[in-house]
Amino acid sequence: MPQYDLPLAELQRYRSSATPPADLDAFWTRTLDAAREVASPPKVQPVDSGLSVVEVSDVTLSGFDGEPVKAWYRRPAGVTGDLPVVVRYQGYTGGRGLPHQVGPYPLAGYAVLEVDSRGQGTGYGWVGDTPDPHGHGPSYLGGFMTRGLLDPEEYYYRRLITDAVLAVDAAQQLPGVDPSQVVVAGISQGGGIALAVSALRDDLAGVMADVPFLSDFPRAVVTATAGPYPEIAAYLASHRDHVDRVFATLAYVDAAVLVTRSTAPALFSVALMDNVCPPSTVYAAYNAYAGDKQLRSYPFNDHEGGQFHQEAEQLAWLRQLLHP
Amino acid sequence: MPQYDLPLAELQRYRSSATPPADLDAFWTRTLDAAREVASPPKVQPVDSGLSVVEVSDVTLSGFDGEPVKAWYRRPAGVTGDLPVVVRYQGYTGGRGLPHQVGPYPLAGYAVLEVDSRGQGTGYGWVGDTPDPHGHGPSYLGGFMTRGLLDPEEYYYRRLITDAVLAVDAAQQLPGVDPSQVVVAGISQGGGIALAVSALRDDLAGVMADVPFLSDFPRAVVTATAGPYPEIAAYLASHRDHVDRVFATLAYVDAAVLVTRSTAPALFSVALMDNVCPPSTVYAAYNAYAGDKQLRSYPFNDHEGGQFHQEAEQLAWLRQLLHP
Amino acid sequence: MPQYDLPLAELQRYRSSATPPADLDAFWTRTLDAAREVASPPKVQPVDSGLSVVEVSDVTLSGFDGEPVKAWYRRPAGVTGDLPVVVRYQGYTGGRGLPHQVGPYPLAGYAVLEVDSRGQGTGYGWVGDTPDPHGHGPSYLGGFMTRGLLDPEEYYYRRLITDAVLAVDAAQQLPGVDPSQVVVAGISQGGGIALAVSALRDDLAGVMADVPFLSDFPRAVVTATAGPYPEIAAYLASHRDHVDRVFATLAYVDAAVLVTRSTAPALFSVALMDNVCPPSTVYAAYNAYAGDKQLRSYPFNDHEGGQFHQEAEQLAWLRQLLHP
Amino acid sequence: MPQYDLPLAELQRYRSSATPPADLDAFWTRTLDAAREVASPPKVQPVDSGLSVVEVSDVTLSGFDGEPVKAWYRRPAGVTGDLPVVVRYQGYTGGRGLPHQVGPYPLAGYAVLEVDSRGQGTGYGWVGDTPDPHGHGPSYLGGFMTRGLLDPEEYYYRRLITDAVLAVDAAQQLPGVDPSQVVVAGISQGGGIALAVSALRDDLAGVMADVPFLSDFPRAVVTATAGPYPEIAAYLASHRDHVDRVFATLAYVDAAVLVTRSTAPALFSVALMDNVCPPSTVYAAYNAYAGDKQLRSYPFNDHEGGQFHQEAEQLAWLRQLLHP
Amino acid sequence: MPQYDLPLAELQRYRSSATPPADLDAFWTRTLDAAREVASPPKVQPVDSGLSVVEVSDVTLSGFDGEPVKAWYRRPAGVTGDLPVVVRYQGYTGGRGLPHQVGPYPLAGYAVLEVDSRGQGTGYGWVGDTPDPHGHGPSYLGGFMTRGLLDPEEYYYRRLITDAVLAVDAAQQLPGVDPSQVVVAGISQGGGIALAVSALRDDLAGVMADVPFLSDFPRAVVTATAGPYPEIAAYLASHRDHVDRVFATLAYVDAAVLVTRSTAPALFSVALMDNVCPPSTVYAAYNAYAGDKQLRSYPFNDHEGGQFHQEAEQLAWLRQLLHP
Amino acid sequence: MPQYDLPLAELQRYRSSATPPADLDAFWTRTLDAAREVASPPKVQPVDSGLSVVEVSDVTLSGFDGEPVKAWYRRPAGVTGDLPVVVRYQGYTGGRGLPHQVGPYPLAGYAVLEVDSRGQGTGYGWVGDTPDPHGHGPSYLGGFMTRGLLDPEEYYYRRLITDAVLAVDAAQQLPGVDPSQVVVAGISQGGGIALAVSALRDDLAGVMADVPFLSDFPRAVVTATAGPYPEIAAYLASHRDHVDRVFATLAYVDAAVLVTRSTAPALFSVALMDNVCPPSTVYAAYNAYAGDKQLRSYPFNDHEGGQFHQEAEQLAWLRQLLHP
Repeated sequence: MPQYDLPLAELQRYRSSATPPADLDAFWTRTLDAAREVASPPKVQPVDSGLSVVEVSDVTLSGFDGEPVKAWYRRPAGVTGDLPVVVRYQGYTGGRGLPHQVGPYPLAGYAVLEVDSRGQGTGYGWVGDTPDPHGHGPSYLGGFMTRGLLDPEEYYYRRLITDAVLAVDAAQQLPGVDPSQVVVAGISQGGGIALAVSALRDDLAGVMADVPFLSDFPRAVVTATAGPYPEIAAYLASHRDHVDRVFATLAYVDAAVLVTRSTAPALFSVALMDNVCPPSTVYAAYNAYAGDKQLRSYPFNDHEGGQFHQEAEQLAWLRQLLHP
Repeated sequence: MPQYDLPLAELQRYRSSATPPADLDAFWTRTLDAAREVASPPKVQPVDSGLSVVEVSDVTLSGFDGEPVKAWYRRPAGVTGDLPVVVRYQGYTGGRGLPHQVGPYPLAGYAVLEVDSRGQGTGYGWVGDTPDPHGHGPSYLGGFMTRGLLDPEEYYYRRLITDAVLAVDAAQQLPGVDPSQVVVAGISQGGGIALAVSALRDDLAGVMADVPFLSDFPRAVVTATAGPYPEIAAYLASHRDHVDRVFATLAYVDAAVLVTRSTAPALFSVALMDNVCPPSTVYAAYNAYAGDKQLRSYPFNDHEGGQFHQEAEQLAWLRQLLHP
Repeated sequence: MPQYDLPLAELQRYRSSATPPADLDAFWTRTLDAAREVASPPKVQPVDSGLSVVEVSDVTLSGFDGEPVKAWYRRPAGVTGDLPVVVRYQGYTGGRGLPHQVGPYPLAGYAVLEVDSRGQGTGYGWVGDTPDPHGHGPSYLGGFMTRGLLDPEEYYYRRLITDAVLAVDAAQQLPGVDPSQVVVAGISQGGGIALAVSALRDDLAGVMADVPFLSDFPRAVVTATAGPYPEIAAYLASHRDHVDRVFATLAYVDAAVLVTRSTAPALFSVALMDNVCPPSTVYAAYNAYAGDKQLRSYPFNDHEGGQFHQEAEQLAWLRQLLHP
Repeated sequence: MPQYDLPLAELQRYRSSATPPADLDAFWTRTLDAAREVASPPKVQPVDSGLSVVEVSDVTLSGFDGEPVKAWYRRPAGVTGDLPVVVRYQGYTGGRGLPHQVGPYPLAGYAVLEVDSRGQGTGYGWVGDTPDPHGHGPSYLGGFMTRGLLDPEEYYYRRLITDAVLAVDAAQQLPGVDPSQVVVAGISQGGGIALAVSALRDDLAGVMADVPFLSDFPRAVVTATAGPYPEIAAYLASHRDHVDRVFATLAYVDAAVLVTRSTAPALFSVALMDNVCPPSTVYAAYNAYAGDKQLRSYPFNDHEGGQFHQEAEQLAWLRQLLHP
Repeated sequence: MPQYDLPLAELQRYRSSATPPADLDAFWTRTLDAAREVASPPKVQPVDSGLSVVEVSDVTLSGFDGEPVKAWYRRPAGVTGDLPVVVRYQGYTGGRGLPHQVGPYPLAGYAVLEVDSRGQGTGYGWVGDTPDPHGHGPSYLGGFMTRGLLDPEEYYYRRLITDAVLAVDAAQQLPGVDPSQVVVAGISQGGGIALAVSALRDDLAGVMADVPFLSDFPRAVVTATAGPYPEIAAYLASHRDHVDRVFATLAYVDAAVLVTRSTAPALFSVALMDNVCPPSTVYAAYNAYAGDKQLRSYPFNDHEGGQFHQEAEQLAWLRQLLHP
Repeated sequence: MPQYDLPLAELQRYRSSATPPADLDAFWTRTLDAAREVASPPKVQPVDSGLSVVEVSDVTLSGFDGEPVKAWYRRPAGVTGDLPVVVRYQGYTGGRGLPHQVGPYPLAGYAVLEVDSRGQGTGYGWVGDTPDPHGHGPSYLGGFMTRGLLDPEEYYYRRLITDAVLAVDAAQQLPGVDPSQVVVAGISQGGGIALAVSALRDDLAGVMADVPFLSDFPRAVVTATAGPYPEIAAYLASHRDHVDRVFATLAYVDAAVLVTRSTAPALFSVALMDNVCPPSTVYAAYNAYAGDKQLRSYPFNDHEGGQFHQEAEQLAWLRQLLHP
């Protein structure tokens, strides 16, 4: 796969053409207030993961409309003090996985809350356990991108982002967590969600967004050749009369729109041969991000991005940022 | 594509290994009774389709749990008497389409009720208008095959088949319909639905099932290389511990299981190079079908099947069967 | 598939670099005169299509060199007056189909002449019945694009366009047709043919060209990635010494060249993700078209274009244009 | 690609199910007699090929209906005596090529007549120069397999095989050829043609057929996944009512049917991973071949077969067979 | 992808047709003796992996001909006693990865030696650090399968398996390891290597082989459609005269041949839709395995196999087997 | 495939951004001096190729570090005087082939030395016989592009280019060769090698480079979509920290860098739809070439380029250049 997107110099100054809805802040304030009103504290249940150096608990937290969202809470075994916590969101189709599917953050001494994505959880062996108890109108092959796409109130990502914001509320209430040191993180969909959360909270210690999805829909939908963005193009290829309504909805969850409100320090990564999240759409979010920010670029990678090299970058960045 | 399935002689005696659930009849009786209890008569609203020789009305009928299901009711313009009616179901991802998307049956003098598939309606330009107001647990890329797959009560196809059975109730109540002359019909998913309906009613005049889907899941899931069956394989590739529950659920909606209860005369078609609905799975339904039956075979076709040639066969078959 | 062609602003002012042959008008005048000299009136034979609301007749009309060309003549049943007529041409590889394969125009009250494409007629289930009794020199896999490509006199499309122009002559002679109200129409190859006909007649009431093919060969051959244009590239990849002769021939049948002579009102459609007929080549024809014109654009479609939505646009446009 | 066809032991006893037409011999006698009646002696014109060790002449010989067929006549330079001659036929889509495109036989001291395939000649850089001045009815994408497929009299391969038989007549009349030592040869289509010629002449010194095409159509059409056989399946996928007529025509040109009449010694080759000419179809011809025969098998090759290794086998086999 | 291999009942009794070389034991005794003669003890160097709950050391051990092989030695942090150790081998193209790329075994309390594959180490982000200082003759695209394939002495896998056997020697010498409790493990190539090691040592506590590669070459090479086996078919497609020599070499490293000598308890896994390591070739090894054995089967998985579910199975199996 | 690279006007002035290493000349002087120091004269052994008009000898010449490199020496049979000689290099993965695989140059009266590529020799039926007795560190799937890529001293192409330069030394010593008339030639990798040789010798009579590879790596690696360049991108996709070292190494063997030193007359060819060697990278070499030069352009070809047409161009160009 070649580097097919804009030349680097143009990427570095590229801005999305997405228009912020007039009521964007009101929309999210109202949405989050409603969810918090019916929220209850997280339930935490230790499980036998088969592991001995990491403790794993099954968490049920309150998400959109008070609906239960599953997560794994992991900590280094035998550590008693309050730890910084990484709240991690999943890539498209993935779920929280099995108890023993442990990423690098808990091994580096942090607490981690690995949050399920409602309705998803069959991709790449990352199973999930959280239902999405909301139906929807006609959609493309049932893909998540097009569920409720005609109305911001009904859109799937309104619920998923709300779950993600409230997962931070829950993380702050977990035993053994330092609530002033929460970092949100994720790859692809998880990275887009983390960026959205960063715009909807002012109490985060940091944000890590790798090859983030959900950014700059007007360009993404006509540029990406793989992954979930083409679901929207496919929907509009049939529902040719819904173009304006669709992009009006998408503007409410577009990271490139939201992150002008973000304040936490952020570490981004981008892959210059990425067909799923085109580099221009990642730069659209990065260039618009209002907080301190750094970007790691991987010129020869497709959507796998920096993988383990980026993990190493993140461990170093977290070490400087946090105080475990 | 070659003829990759069993040799013809083996197809002709092939039987599915699917096991009928002990409570199969009770399950469906209970399901349909509940839906009929809350049903209301169909609402019929004439529309301007841009056509002059066919009259088109927008119908809202009562489906599963009384939920609204959209349909188009079409009749030859200017005909006043009661007509036989073809109730037609859609292929996977398709919807009822636009008012002027007219198939051959109304042009041949029959009334037609073109029934939407809840939640679907973005495929191949066949748009839909019927929501499926039911959420679900983790599923494969959101595909319809895996929604609620762990529980027959929650499974998507319980709702879709219920809609289809009640669409016949509605058709019988439409103005200008002879309720004793109802034929159910469909291609692929529509054909599988038609077969299921044929097993759940004893008042049909006929059944036309082309390259039917939803038949003989145990073989289909390990044989098909394209289309929706592989969604189930993909789900089980992640949820490796759900195999038994999944096939237990599927047995409730498997046409090869259900049609041992069917009585109406039926016209099937099969394509011997079909990768989506393998010929053995079509023969599984055909060989098990309990009513009078005929089969048209297309040896060189993939899932497009007999297309216009099969339409011509159907028009001839209907002409013998019905009395417009 | 992304939007891969020129940006919209450039499309809107794009012009083909194809050069009109010096003897273009003489070539076509001579060709059509010769064909008309040996033409005989259309033969019309009613058939039983299995339909009741549309009457179908088998038509044999005179095409290139007086050779027989098959068509279906369809009218709303029971209408006795003279009707406007849509003369419709087929997409690449398709034929006129079976008698009951009815599109939307006759259902909207118009007469329709569905014209076969000589030699073609095996694609997508649209069978044909018209031979092309002309051999040819070496060609690419026998594809129609390269038959006789070295000489405008011998080129396949000289014959096909002549058939198409004479099909309008025939349509005007059909019983029950208002000869002053002829609209030519088609999708893809059919659309390119319709545009060519519009340039070679001055008595048309209208033109409908959807995602038209046969336009702007110099750009099309180096831009399209699917469909028939690459047949020409493949021919030139072997016959490397024929480049000039090939493009000299193509200029005689290039819609982008011909339509500077067109006068009838036209309705175009274009799809911005079209890999078969790149949007720039459609704009090349639209921008050069000399008559009144409108363009419907489908930004998220590949070569399927506007499909049923475009049909609805056309029914509305025809209703304003014609007086049935 | 795996070895996907029958196991070796079954291949070795496999027989085609194709039925010889009752009038098979009469058909070919009549066809060849008619062609010979209007034949004229070959015209031979030396050309400058740019080579010095091989002499190349442009030959025009009489084929079907006396129509001109082009060929290259090549001989080692400076050799004056009469030489054995290899008459070579082309693979599907290929032509005789440019004058300097020399294969191994002339370099080994034999005369070679490299015969064009009418209408073909754009494949793989092997250009051709021979027209096929015969039109045809509807066909699949214009592919050669389906031209005139409904009638043995009109079928393309009747003409091509007649050209091939008469090319041997011409070869025997060339200056410097020993007419008692003619070997026919070819790869794929060329091999199938060579086998057909071997059945229609009794004066050949030898036959070399590599991965031959045109053999055992009933199995080939439902087994091959690439190459030209699927053109027939594609035709029948649209023209579903032509199955019997098509296979009736094909039986006249089926090498597996014809070679029960062959008498010359033959060297075959087969590739066990061949997707274009399935090994069973090659064995069908080999097992039915009535003369002395040998088979070289390449277990790990697709349709490229033995390539240069098989050339070396052939040079050794010819050295034993012929007396230059 | 369907279940394309033998039916389950046949798989369960399937045996490879590979023939054990007469000097198989002598070959390996000589090879391993020679390597051990020049071996030196492992060098162990702690590294900062960025993790706190796992200690990581960089190991350099002696492999074939005393050549250095890299590995990571990982242990739960702060554990001082001797631990059972899992020696883990890599999948094709992968290397030992970065220090922080930690799998589940060390998290479950075991020591782990993650062994590099010489020359490999660019696949899937699993980088490697071990050269293979041996050239070779002509090979397929340079793939590892065909390096030195004409001579068992020169074959790449002789060196890789020797490295693997000596990695166990090294593991037994590492500080904090209980040398009586060594389990060898791996996925795909790693699983094949683990099986080979199990045949060449009698001091192992256990073997875990997931979807193992390097098994039953005679069937694998003509059955697999993806992954490295087709490299051998591709080599033989060019080097048609090397077939016997190639399979003679392969028999020395064929797990299905070797494991008749194995004695340790083994946990296998197989995937019934595996295109890379066909299920029959996995059963060939399993059925031939001479020690206690269990098999987990994943009917709907391709070569990813059981993934995290199999990891959980392994953690449970290890817990019963070992005494940390 | 479309023309996807820069527009023609930009190609004609395009220059590579590759930076010549400061010690480029010293590097090559040192490398070639060392090889020549240990070189021995070519060994020439006549073989029976099965051909009579061309004489073939097996040559073993001294390459890098005095290592043996195989070649075929071919001459027109029976010619006794000294002939100009074409030294020909192979395409990627190909070898010198079998003795009778003769190209056009010997048939046109020239001597030809067909030089093997060490380690390669399994592609497209062009077998090879020359080992590459050098191991290497981790590489991408073992592909040749990435062997020793971190160090110019260890890089595979340092050895291959040295072999190629010394093959000219050997050619000049062959019996029956005019050492003042050496032309180097090749297609793809062979063309890139020929260009490199042209920069490292000042005694060549001519250079023929068709669709040359190994040119302008900085652009090639991010532009090519097929062939060997993507091996480098794939390596860097895993070894993300090696980017600078890799491009530093590549600059030593980059034809676009080297040919500023070339002096011999050159005939290039380029294909404008070439996905393997993008046209811009060929123009990069052509535009930088310091000697007399001509370019043949094939606008509709992918990497097959001009094939037999280009051979004919070359025969004409050689006829003018050389004095046999």
